[in-house]
Amino acid sequence: MTHRWPIRVYYEDVDLAGIVYYANYLRFIERARSEMVRAAGIDQAALREAGRVFAVSRVEADYLAPARYDDDLVVETALTRVTGARFEMAQTVFRGETALFRAQVTIVFMDLDGRPKRLPPEVAAMG
Amino acid sequence: MTHRWPIRVYYEDVDLAGIVYYANYLRFIERARSEMVRAAGIDQAALREAGRVFAVSRVEADYLAPARYDDDLVVETALTRVTGARFEMAQTVFRGETALFRAQVTIVFMDLDGRPKRLPPEVAAMG
Amino acid sequence: MTHRWPIRVYYEDVDLAGIVYYANYLRFIERARSEMVRAAGIDQAALREAGRVFAVSRVEADYLAPARYDDDLVVETALTRVTGARFEMAQTVFRGETALFRAQVTIVFMDLDGRPKRLPPEVAAMG
Amino acid sequence: MTHRWPIRVYYEDVDLAGIVYYANYLRFIERARSEMVRAAGIDQAALREAGRVFAVSRVEADYLAPARYDDDLVVETALTRVTGARFEMAQTVFRGETALFRAQVTIVFMDLDGRPKRLPPEVAAMG
Repeated sequence: MTHRWPIRVYYEDVDLAGIVYYANYLRFIERARSEMVRAAGIDQAALREAGRVFAVSRVEADYLAPARYDDDLVVETALTRVTGARFEMAQTVFRGETALFRAQVTIVFMDLDGRPKRLPPEVAAMG
Repeated sequence: MTHRWPIRVYYEDVDLAGIVYYANYLRFIERARSEMVRAAGIDQAALREAGRVFAVSRVEADYLAPARYDDDLVVETALTRVTGARFEMAQTVFRGETALFRAQVTIVFMDLDGRPKRLPPEVAAMG
Repeated sequence: MTHRWPIRVYYEDVDLAGIVYYANYLRFIERARSEMVRAAGIDQAALREAGRVFAVSRVEADYLAPARYDDDLVVETALTRVTGARFEMAQTVFRGETALFRAQVTIVFMDLDGRPKRLPPEVAAMG
Repeated sequence: MTHRWPIRVYYEDVDLAGIVYYANYLRFIERARSEMVRAAGIDQAALREAGRVFAVSRVEADYLAPARYDDDLVVETALTRVTGARFEMAQTVFRGETALFRAQVTIVFMDLDGRPKRLPPEVAAMG
């Protein structure tokens, strides 16, 4: 099941070449993950209160073509792998049919001391 | 006593006009305030542990001339007013002799519920 | 005529106090201004190609109450003053009925050398 | 030859867990690359005027341990591979002896239309 989330490119996002600054794609795809997690019924704020957080442990990112100021983008996110305390997501940023950015993101569920914890069942249900 | 702190302008800071994005001056001057506070012997991380934070309550900012990519800037900060739980700082961002940005910033010292608290004595000593 | 634009607070927006970092409100209200300008039929990307940009010249900002992670905010924007090359906007960030942040923003229309230029007529029509 | 560049963690860098937001490590390591490139005698602003830019084409990043507010970090950067229009850098963010973040970054030198161009000789000399 692929989740789709729209992103508009604003002044804050681009650099002097008029293209999206490379770190900002990570902001874009994190928004999409947050929305996918919310749609799955997971309340990150409540988890945080309970001493549990999702933390990114690895990112592999390919910059395929630049996104530009004022572009209307879509982030597609798919769950690709779930193990005990970890899951992986494939995320692609599109402008229309064109893939601009692609990332494989590994996330670990843990307590505030960084100890891995068993994933909430809603995570696997996103697949 | 005026505090001076250097800032280099990087790719992350500029927009597609090649000039510093307007919100980023607030990041620059906050770095300068943090360094001034540190130099005064105030440990913000320890205060935070003790349930005390500095919060900005008002900013008046004038954008006088644009800072550009790769510019070598200096932030000048002076304490201009101290009352019970609040203080004000005048902050100016310079490139050489040219003032590019000027702000008057009001900061309140408070607990984590937002209740104002008496300032640590080190704050007044920064004046 | 008041323009309204929704903003969701993500991880990228908050600081270690769990509240929106003070500079990020300027990002939020700039998104709202960009959307208002777009809705008025002004194409900032095309203006930029033609050597014209909107630049912020002054901000007066009051931080009334903190926005928190995961908050669903609305930015209300109203045009309050238009002169030859400048206009002012009153912008307020709300969570429900509660005003969290309020700013008066002055914007100047200019060429790439910073010379003020007569505003496009669509600007006054936003009022 | 390893390049070292210090980074202080400010309020703008951390999220509500009190740790550096994952995208911000990419800002940190880009500052270090910019300083390494400057130290090698390459003027990115002049290159940009001449229609040449460095663009990141791939990042592999591992988040090993969190950096926290007020941390004093060092970014170590080493050139690991140079081909016609591309080079790779290994970058590690340390707090003291502890590696917190590690990335392998591939950069391509190109014109403003995205066509790869032969690297300036100063790049290989950084190795």
